[in-house]
Amino acid sequence: MTGEAYARAHRARFLGELKQLVRFPSVSAQSKHAGDVRACAGWLAEHLKRIGMAGVRIVPTPRHPIVYAEWMGAPDRPTVLIYGHYDVQPPDPLKEWTTPPFEPTVRGSHLYGRGVCDDKGQLFAHVKALEACLKTSGRLPVNVKCLFEGEEEIGSPNLKPFLLKHAGKLAADAAVMSDTRILGPDQPALTYSLRGGLGMELEVAGAKQDLHSGTFGGAVHNPLHALCEIVAGLHDAEGRIAIPGFYDRVRLPDERERAYMATVGPADASILANARILADAGASRGWGEPGWSIYERTTIRPSLAVTGLTGGYQGEGSKAVIPARASAKLNFRLVPDQDPREIDLLVRRHLARVTPPTVRSKVTTQLGARPAVLDRRHPVMRAAARAYRRGFRASPVFLRSGGSIPVVNLFQERLGIPTALMGFALPDDRIHAPNERFHLPNFERGIATCLAFLEEMAAVPAQTAGAPLQTEALA
Amino acid sequence: MTGEAYARAHRARFLGELKQLVRFPSVSAQSKHAGDVRACAGWLAEHLKRIGMAGVRIVPTPRHPIVYAEWMGAPDRPTVLIYGHYDVQPPDPLKEWTTPPFEPTVRGSHLYGRGVCDDKGQLFAHVKALEACLKTSGRLPVNVKCLFEGEEEIGSPNLKPFLLKHAGKLAADAAVMSDTRILGPDQPALTYSLRGGLGMELEVAGAKQDLHSGTFGGAVHNPLHALCEIVAGLHDAEGRIAIPGFYDRVRLPDERERAYMATVGPADASILANARILADAGASRGWGEPGWSIYERTTIRPSLAVTGLTGGYQGEGSKAVIPARASAKLNFRLVPDQDPREIDLLVRRHLARVTPPTVRSKVTTQLGARPAVLDRRHPVMRAAARAYRRGFRASPVFLRSGGSIPVVNLFQERLGIPTALMGFALPDDRIHAPNERFHLPNFERGIATCLAFLEEMAAVPAQTAGAPLQTEALA
Repeated sequence: MTGEAYARAHRARFLGELKQLVRFPSVSAQSKHAGDVRACAGWLAEHLKRIGMAGVRIVPTPRHPIVYAEWMGAPDRPTVLIYGHYDVQPPDPLKEWTTPPFEPTVRGSHLYGRGVCDDKGQLFAHVKALEACLKTSGRLPVNVKCLFEGEEEIGSPNLKPFLLKHAGKLAADAAVMSDTRILGPDQPALTYSLRGGLGMELEVAGAKQDLHSGTFGGAVHNPLHALCEIVAGLHDAEGRIAIPGFYDRVRLPDERERAYMATVGPADASILANARILADAGASRGWGEPGWSIYERTTIRPSLAVTGLTGGYQGEGSKAVIPARASAKLNFRLVPDQDPREIDLLVRRHLARVTPPTVRSKVTTQLGARPAVLDRRHPVMRAAARAYRRGFRASPVFLRSGGSIPVVNLFQERLGIPTALMGFALPDDRIHAPNERFHLPNFERGIATCLAFLEEMAAVPAQTAGAPLQTEALA
Repeated sequence: MTGEAYARAHRARFLGELKQLVRFPSVSAQSKHAGDVRACAGWLAEHLKRIGMAGVRIVPTPRHPIVYAEWMGAPDRPTVLIYGHYDVQPPDPLKEWTTPPFEPTVRGSHLYGRGVCDDKGQLFAHVKALEACLKTSGRLPVNVKCLFEGEEEIGSPNLKPFLLKHAGKLAADAAVMSDTRILGPDQPALTYSLRGGLGMELEVAGAKQDLHSGTFGGAVHNPLHALCEIVAGLHDAEGRIAIPGFYDRVRLPDERERAYMATVGPADASILANARILADAGASRGWGEPGWSIYERTTIRPSLAVTGLTGGYQGEGSKAVIPARASAKLNFRLVPDQDPREIDLLVRRHLARVTPPTVRSKVTTQLGARPAVLDRRHPVMRAAARAYRRGFRASPVFLRSGGSIPVVNLFQERLGIPTALMGFALPDDRIHAPNERFHLPNFERGIATCLAFLEEMAAVPAQTAGAPLQTEALA
């Protein structure tokens, strides 16, 4: 019996087990659910033991535990690190759910429940692939290490220390995670680039303390005005970032890739329509750097968003105050070959130059991730693409993402390995929203794809798989 | 024995009584002090009875009581409404006080304590003047109504309903309050103009809900950017307000008044130095409309201060969010002949025109006060000036103020009377700050001035005093 046949034969039990997993309200953000997160970790560890994984451990962290398991019975084969997370977003607003978030329910071809797609269902596809393989062959095609965390939805605060401490134990040739979207039930997609990130905070200060806006209004430069002037000047009238040198190292795409992106990537209209939130609001138009599609603007072009701005009186009504200080949070998204440290210097130089002499400015930096691009011809990408072809009976398209996935950078920087972003979520699976769901045919295709990925990774030439796999451009 | 002689003879007792009044921690903003505020009102009412005032009442309000007293024994004379407040600012930060804020202490020629200047000491000067007069003449030169509130430091929420309800009972020919600053111990000053106010809130909205700044950064117009662009455009590069029509009705001062202002008003350097908060911060330079001194910019020229701005993530660290909305509070200060309603329309028209099509804006208005100017030749002003001359042996200068004092507008609008702003506070009395103090020679001069004011008001010709006194220009 093949692994795929085993998975088909046990379909009903697999669904039942997934429901058990979803029943735990493992909401990592809410301390009242700490016990549920722990119980979910326990269930998962127990399950990994039962399917035949070795070295199963629940590793405590200052907050929620990490579940680890491995199978290392193929010393001459590559090692694959499977990453997933078993914690979930809070289910609020509760009253918008058709059935309760932690009572997983099948309606049509979907299973509904909080976390059923993000990421329990996608994580569980890997677990069931491991089971199918172990129960039919008694072994796996490659070595496997499972790393399932309980803090992804709160920013993975304890993953980095864990990786630093156990880098040796976690050594692998490639990582795979299924926590991204594909284009449709029959259209798988591999994400091959992520933008980098750079967080900065700009504080503009005037007087030592708040001033009365009656007594001083019109006589001193209000830090809030100065801040708005500076922020307004960060973009030109057309939406380009107006910081000298900012675009200098931005790599221009070759025309072939641009044409490919235009063919497979979402069109402007579909992005705006998909983001129903925009259309609903009557603000259904794009904005930004001219000459690029929205898909391009959010993937191969850098961007700057002010993600927070605060100063003065925030409450109801009014208060006659010229605040002593005001601040803005700046969130840059970077692309190859921009370097966060170099951009940090350019931004600081620009802000110092445009701060008027009537106020003072202070800049702090939270250095973010570098942009990451995986060569589409990389052996791990080829393996993932072949796996999709076998699991979905369709070739995946290659997509760029506008976001940053910190765990991908952590794996690259701490373990020196690339990550295949081999997701099974659909655009309308309502991740983070009420009535989150998982398309059950995709659960089955996902299991088959995960199985195929392990087999394909075994076929990756030893000298490529044995050494840390290189990404094409980690700018 | 004259009233002045009586005051001199009882100087030590007056000081002791003022200390008793200051000992009450009548902090109106803190509900834990509600009992203390009530006790302070009780002491004050008892005291007014003891000195011979009639009709003494403690009028409860939804929060802190109003103390009322009157002496109406001169039917053919004008009636003066004496306004003051017995509540005080919170004393924080406590550790910066040399002696505890509610243990009034004399050091040198000052009495130290919270509220000793603002407004207990200045209010008590009127009370002691009434006593001196009643105890020596058995009567007052004019009819007097005392209105002492306990909510001034929290914005007088219950004063307007009280005035509406008791407008008949409170009928008077003029009001006087001592809660403003003079220029120095030997340089009294009468405030003769207040700027008007207009509060507006501008909200800029984009998508229906927050968007991810990775996924959408660079592709949609961030409401925070749009808001900053709009706010930055509210002033031109030189500090003028850039709203079409905004200055159309601003009355140009005659050159004689400008010259007078330049002679008696504070110079730019002294304003900036006096506001040590600016100098300390290293931001000791002015800003604003060219061609006018700082004193002029804050008094005879209108201004706009953004008093609050908020949008996006306000907490520590960062969050990858393009906020759905952002808002700014706009605080206009208006001068004659600007009309708050007309300015409101001009601002709305401007905001609608400059809102880019990529976002939507919403404007709300809190209609404020009209600007108020009292003719310096007004009989009440002349009476106050003569009173200062007798009490301080120095002629007062006439100052314009940049602020708005809502109670002055309330008296004008609800009772139809002007208010003499006859203060005794010095610029360095540390109002609202630690180590607040009151210059004791000014307490004595203040009592003499209050006594003289009552006598001078008696001399105001009957036909002027009998009818509501007109202000020159209440634009």
